Amino acid sequence: MKFEFQNPTHLVFGAGTLAHLGEAVRAYGKHALLVTGGGSVKRNGTFDRAISSLKAYGITFAECPGIEPNPKLSSVITGTGIARHEGCDMVVGLGGGSVMDAAKVIAASVCYQGDPWDMIMHGQENRRVPTQALPVITVPTLAATGSEMNGTAVITNEKTSVKSFVGAKCLYPKVALVDPELTLSVPPDQTAFGICDLITHVTESYFNGIDCTPIQDRFAEGVILTAMEWGPKALSNGLDIEARAQVQWASIVALNGWVQVGTATNYPVHMIEHVLSAHHDIAHGAGLAIVNPAWMRLAAKTRPDRFARFAQRIFGLPAPSGKEEQTAREGIDRLESFLRSTGCPTRLSEVNIGDTMLARYAQDSLHIIHDKDGRLPGRPPMSESDIIELLRSAL
Amino acid sequence: MKFEFQNPTHLVFGAGTLAHLGEAVRAYGKHALLVTGGGSVKRNGTFDRAISSLKAYGITFAECPGIEPNPKLSSVITGTGIARHEGCDMVVGLGGGSVMDAAKVIAASVCYQGDPWDMIMHGQENRRVPTQALPVITVPTLAATGSEMNGTAVITNEKTSVKSFVGAKCLYPKVALVDPELTLSVPPDQTAFGICDLITHVTESYFNGIDCTPIQDRFAEGVILTAMEWGPKALSNGLDIEARAQVQWASIVALNGWVQVGTATNYPVHMIEHVLSAHHDIAHGAGLAIVNPAWMRLAAKTRPDRFARFAQRIFGLPAPSGKEEQTAREGIDRLESFLRSTGCPTRLSEVNIGDTMLARYAQDSLHIIHDKDGRLPGRPPMSESDIIELLRSAL
Repeated sequence: MKFEFQNPTHLVFGAGTLAHLGEAVRAYGKHALLVTGGGSVKRNGTFDRAISSLKAYGITFAECPGIEPNPKLSSVITGTGIARHEGCDMVVGLGGGSVMDAAKVIAASVCYQGDPWDMIMHGQENRRVPTQALPVITVPTLAATGSEMNGTAVITNEKTSVKSFVGAKCLYPKVALVDPELTLSVPPDQTAFGICDLITHVTESYFNGIDCTPIQDRFAEGVILTAMEWGPKALSNGLDIEARAQVQWASIVALNGWVQVGTATNYPVHMIEHVLSAHHDIAHGAGLAIVNPAWMRLAAKTRPDRFARFAQRIFGLPAPSGKEEQTAREGIDRLESFLRSTGCPTRLSEVNIGDTMLARYAQDSLHIIHDKDGRLPGRPPMSESDIIELLRSAL
Repeated sequence: MKFEFQNPTHLVFGAGTLAHLGEAVRAYGKHALLVTGGGSVKRNGTFDRAISSLKAYGITFAECPGIEPNPKLSSVITGTGIARHEGCDMVVGLGGGSVMDAAKVIAASVCYQGDPWDMIMHGQENRRVPTQALPVITVPTLAATGSEMNGTAVITNEKTSVKSFVGAKCLYPKVALVDPELTLSVPPDQTAFGICDLITHVTESYFNGIDCTPIQDRFAEGVILTAMEWGPKALSNGLDIEARAQVQWASIVALNGWVQVGTATNYPVHMIEHVLSAHHDIAHGAGLAIVNPAWMRLAAKTRPDRFARFAQRIFGLPAPSGKEEQTAREGIDRLESFLRSTGCPTRLSEVNIGDTMLARYAQDSLHIIHDKDGRLPGRPPMSESDIIELLRSAL
């Protein structure tokens, strides 16, 4: 293992912490751009409580509402314009992963004179990784992406149907204020997609990281086991604040770097899913529930030992020597069954995606990122035909 | 769970990273106070390699050598004087936990006009938690305390034989440069004490934290399992760089906050051990190997379920309902056997401590910290007679 790690975000976690938003952010600015989504935060009172806390500390704000799921580049550009025109000195993202991601890219775009798309990974040679951004504050209303405590964001260029990511030191939020009460009203389907999203963050590095990272393996297993224990409780009773808190904490830890640290991982499942949700109006977590088991079945052929151990440690399956392939398959089946039990789709047909564009999806994912041999990085690296085969198996 | 978390330290981890010391720290100062211990870093060439890397980036240094195990307040005062006289603008701790802890307190003392002991927790009303410090850089040569990536330090007031701690935001190192190659020459006894130290950091929060922290539990178990898997490899072949790296990584994670986060834990075993090593010349890890199993047996009486689960998850013991006390005892016996197998003492008589001062040890630990009922905080809180009973059971 050889790596560097730093996550400077100040995490404030707990039921009722929304009331402390103003206090938590006052060191970072006086006039915030308040980025929100489709309006649920206004309907359920979260917005009013947030601005009330800001006002109590003399913090004023301008609004950037209406960030859509799979946030669009045009929304980032709009938000950047508002922040500049209003002279905002920090950006508060109050919403789900899309809102927080848009808030991050807006914060960087305000400090950058070119096209914000320059920052986003999409295969170009001269990408401009941002080095400056307004202070970002995240207040998640969904337990899913982990965006509240990391330095990455995912944006969709709606003109080209390319959905891709940016990761930079300056994008780490100064404060992540995480109040699980804000997730009590999240409907079951979105709750399930969030659980799938966080599990997939962890399986990516578990299966695509380097060998011999035993602590990271244990951490990953701990996140999955906790999500599988507490996720169903949050689904069966959305008002169970303890279950909501555990799921949200799991979602943070799943992608704040503590599990991935030192694994030098790739995210092939995410890369493929991003293409699906760039072309189709599906939730990211739903797409992952379809792609991940299919990817695992393909990858398990090349590393049955690793997948057998997953089956053993997560599902307590016996793992007799010489039967690794069978054990691996059983573990993947169990994970897929779990996802189905939460209400996630696990086949493309369930989200009305057919076989007509499989080659396009494969090409698009390779356009975003590929190794020197033109393959999607991961274990194993995947060629265009590998990706098509994977997607065909999930039809 | 309701908590705040922030660990801003930039971790640079990996074999060979010492060569990058100058590059990693150049942003923080130009003239370092280089704090070291008994001289092993000079004998084995580590010192020369460190200063060579500093020089390559134009960084000069003044020396503060000779920090002893269980670092003394007088050494902190001496180091503070050197740093002031030399006009140092950062402090580099190159050594074990004692050296790094001394470096932290020196860095804060330079910015404080009073007695450095004011900062240290020892029961007084008007303690001055430091708010300012020179930038601290840690370069550990031992895998044990985890001091390289946290904001705490332990210092001994040799005049009063009080050994206690300070924790503050300003004490977090700016950079922790962790090169497992530097631990290849650590002798077996110190290696074993380090393994015991890191395991005890994790058992403290596992058993003394609040209820319902499932992810933190899994993380703690992961650290212990990894230390028990890789520790013996590092002991049987000190030159096994992979084993050294895994043990060192475990020691960092054991106390950088990722396991303790949200648990609101106390550290009763550490509090009691600190008193022993303040009065007697014993290694901290050796003292922990004696106190921790004895403490666990006492605490298991009040919470057998919790200790039975430890036995089950760490040692794979069956945990039949209704037999929790027996399972708990077996788990503690297994941990003690493991510690003995690494060469740690597990009885006070092995380190020549008798029963003549048991009441004094108990009183001293309560002097450092106690709850409103005069008991040592933990689960369970312990009175003076509880602590005496515990120590007597370890004679």
